[in-house]
Amino acid sequence: MTRGVRFDGYVGNGAAAPRAFLEACIERIAARESEVKAFVALNVDGARAAADAAAARMKAGRPLSPIDGMPIAVKDLIETKDMPTAFGSRAFEGFAGGRDAAPVWALRAAGAVILGKTVTTEFGVGGPGATRNPHDLTRTPGGSSSGSGAAVGAGMVPVALGTQVGGSVLRPASFCGAIGFKPTYGALNRGQLSDQFSQNCIGVIAGDLGDAWAVCHEIATRVGGDPGHIPFAGGTAPMAARKPATLAVLQTAGWEVADAAAKLAFERRLARLTNDGVELLDRTNSGRVALLERLLADAAEITAGINAWEGLWPIGELAERRPGMLHSRTEELLATARTMTVEDYVALLRRRDALRDALVALAPDTDGCLTLGAPGAAPVGIATTGNAIFNIAASVLRTPALSLPLLEADGMPLGLQLIGFPNGERALSATASWLLTQG
Amino acid sequence: MTRGVRFDGYVGNGAAAPRAFLEACIERIAARESEVKAFVALNVDGARAAADAAAARMKAGRPLSPIDGMPIAVKDLIETKDMPTAFGSRAFEGFAGGRDAAPVWALRAAGAVILGKTVTTEFGVGGPGATRNPHDLTRTPGGSSSGSGAAVGAGMVPVALGTQVGGSVLRPASFCGAIGFKPTYGALNRGQLSDQFSQNCIGVIAGDLGDAWAVCHEIATRVGGDPGHIPFAGGTAPMAARKPATLAVLQTAGWEVADAAAKLAFERRLARLTNDGVELLDRTNSGRVALLERLLADAAEITAGINAWEGLWPIGELAERRPGMLHSRTEELLATARTMTVEDYVALLRRRDALRDALVALAPDTDGCLTLGAPGAAPVGIATTGNAIFNIAASVLRTPALSLPLLEADGMPLGLQLIGFPNGERALSATASWLLTQG
Repeated sequence: MTRGVRFDGYVGNGAAAPRAFLEACIERIAARESEVKAFVALNVDGARAAADAAAARMKAGRPLSPIDGMPIAVKDLIETKDMPTAFGSRAFEGFAGGRDAAPVWALRAAGAVILGKTVTTEFGVGGPGATRNPHDLTRTPGGSSSGSGAAVGAGMVPVALGTQVGGSVLRPASFCGAIGFKPTYGALNRGQLSDQFSQNCIGVIAGDLGDAWAVCHEIATRVGGDPGHIPFAGGTAPMAARKPATLAVLQTAGWEVADAAAKLAFERRLARLTNDGVELLDRTNSGRVALLERLLADAAEITAGINAWEGLWPIGELAERRPGMLHSRTEELLATARTMTVEDYVALLRRRDALRDALVALAPDTDGCLTLGAPGAAPVGIATTGNAIFNIAASVLRTPALSLPLLEADGMPLGLQLIGFPNGERALSATASWLLTQG
Repeated sequence: MTRGVRFDGYVGNGAAAPRAFLEACIERIAARESEVKAFVALNVDGARAAADAAAARMKAGRPLSPIDGMPIAVKDLIETKDMPTAFGSRAFEGFAGGRDAAPVWALRAAGAVILGKTVTTEFGVGGPGATRNPHDLTRTPGGSSSGSGAAVGAGMVPVALGTQVGGSVLRPASFCGAIGFKPTYGALNRGQLSDQFSQNCIGVIAGDLGDAWAVCHEIATRVGGDPGHIPFAGGTAPMAARKPATLAVLQTAGWEVADAAAKLAFERRLARLTNDGVELLDRTNSGRVALLERLLADAAEITAGINAWEGLWPIGELAERRPGMLHSRTEELLATARTMTVEDYVALLRRRDALRDALVALAPDTDGCLTLGAPGAAPVGIATTGNAIFNIAASVLRTPALSLPLLEADGMPLGLQLIGFPNGERALSATASWLLTQG
């Protein structure tokens, strides 16, 4: 039905034979990487050694965690001690900081096998890389976590780390037929990340919800969230499937640009939910949904301004130090920031707070919100990475969201997006499990 | 009366002749640095060129800001593109990242002259450096911003940047007879700082309140606060002196270890305030003060636990990568963190929130809170940097605080600490100006 890749999941399956699981990943990479171009670096020898060490721990009955031996790919905005980190930028070609970022450090401590680094757009904002969509090589895999989406979508790894400020985890997941998950803002430690922007989150792209949950749990247990924030508390595994009583349907500003096939797929899924006895709220029957939708009309503008201003130092400093090295899109962000004052920025923060208030006010009425994962299937061409408009709502709300590979358009995968409430990952997982069970 | 150094202030004075002001600083450094040991690096040539450039802008009637040409020293936890940054650690000897941290980048854009890097304890938590108190070389200057306190206290620079997690700006200011200011958490951009701990703030040590304010304003205007936080909004200059109607006296846990001379100096100052018609609240006549004091009894424990856990990744990763290079005190922090779970950490965050609620509840009753800047004068010896216990309240509350060089004990300077309410820097400056006017 869908073209989404559905691993059986490493946790509870591959964990029985880490080396065999890894070799299957390596074979898949060998078969497809030359055309998909998901990776900027691979450490096959290191991964084999790590998988063997995990296997030895299993045999001895002393696994480090449920993800001991799990192969994981890491977006190239996130430092790894054994591979360079170029942040998708010419200015950092060959840069090797020699250390593991917080989530990578935690994953290694849990026994995970860090197999490679994946393509990102420059600093997550600038020009796209060479990665192609594994389901149709003429199309983009999405971005900015392009390589992470493509690697999971092609079955090269069960899990890849990404990051999302606007739509950089959920969009590639939607386009590549994978599960995309970004937690509540601050719930996974970003230590070292190239930007500490106030919407930026570590997120996970995975073939299986249980794998995604286990990875988040192992990060949060070992290094927590960002300093001062409540760490991911979704549990060691997703909750059992539970049919939601009520879901709120958000069209958001994306609806106007969504294509007919995507809208049809979404509306058919809504009709099934109604048939299944799930009550659907929307702007026509809920004042709280209507208010949230009205405020969300400005989400893209608020996000763009906040992100631009927050780039003033990190990008401005770099532009001076490495003149002429930045992508034109990164330079444009800087140009926008230079038109703003600190007062403009504070005004945007206040508007973002009002959006969050409207979301929290809706929480008693519903089990979560539904919208599309993207305006349609992955567009043809790789000069851009597609439109993030459907992903900005959860980003600006700094609330957890999942893209589930349950829809299809133009014979390509399309995500059904499920948005939760701040720090409500546990409840979100019960609804997500149910939706996945229904297919 | 006090032994505090009181510059006339660069803003409105030295600004008339930046090069002459700088040369006076350089002479003072030449005279005293061999015994005070405030600096780990100086860039005298670069500073002279920057001061001359500022002078040329003045002459042309086009200063970049009110601090154009102001000599500033920078704590060695904060990166500068023209000098190495060792974070007070053997593990980073000679490290040169080649970039300016956000506050330094902003200050240079405002025309400030970055004169040198100042001694810090290792990562702001570990062993002390060789710096001595300029008012008595047998004594500590305090820490962790040891060199910044000593450099300002010795009259070597009008302003130095520091950082504070527990008491690292206000304590050295108190010991060295300078003004110490730490703003609301997040109000000054920490971009790049070696730790992003959830109580860590950029702070300023200065001889003059106007200089301190101008520096904070120029940082906030150019790079804002930490992403997502309300930037410093204290104004371009402190407000005019205004006698507070009411101040709350906090003894906090420090009172039990404060020495007799410090207590006497504090109580005399309180008596003067009463004589001047300022109403004083304390735990005996205000239920809200009593509640806050009761909760603050746990402030040191909460701070210690939160900081330890937040060090798990940055210090734990470093300990693996550079084994045997860390100071025993830094290693102890890590050992504490390893006894904690993520649930322990979250429980401490909740307790910290309750403290903040108690502070905010007090806001309608008073113009601010008063306590000592330290338990006494700087202790003799430099093996430790003294006790932060009086500074932890404002740190755990993540609220603005000033140490004002208005008291004396054992013939040494001692700070009067004025604590404000979150984002209440403007009101705080009116009270601080009045206290300074009264002497």
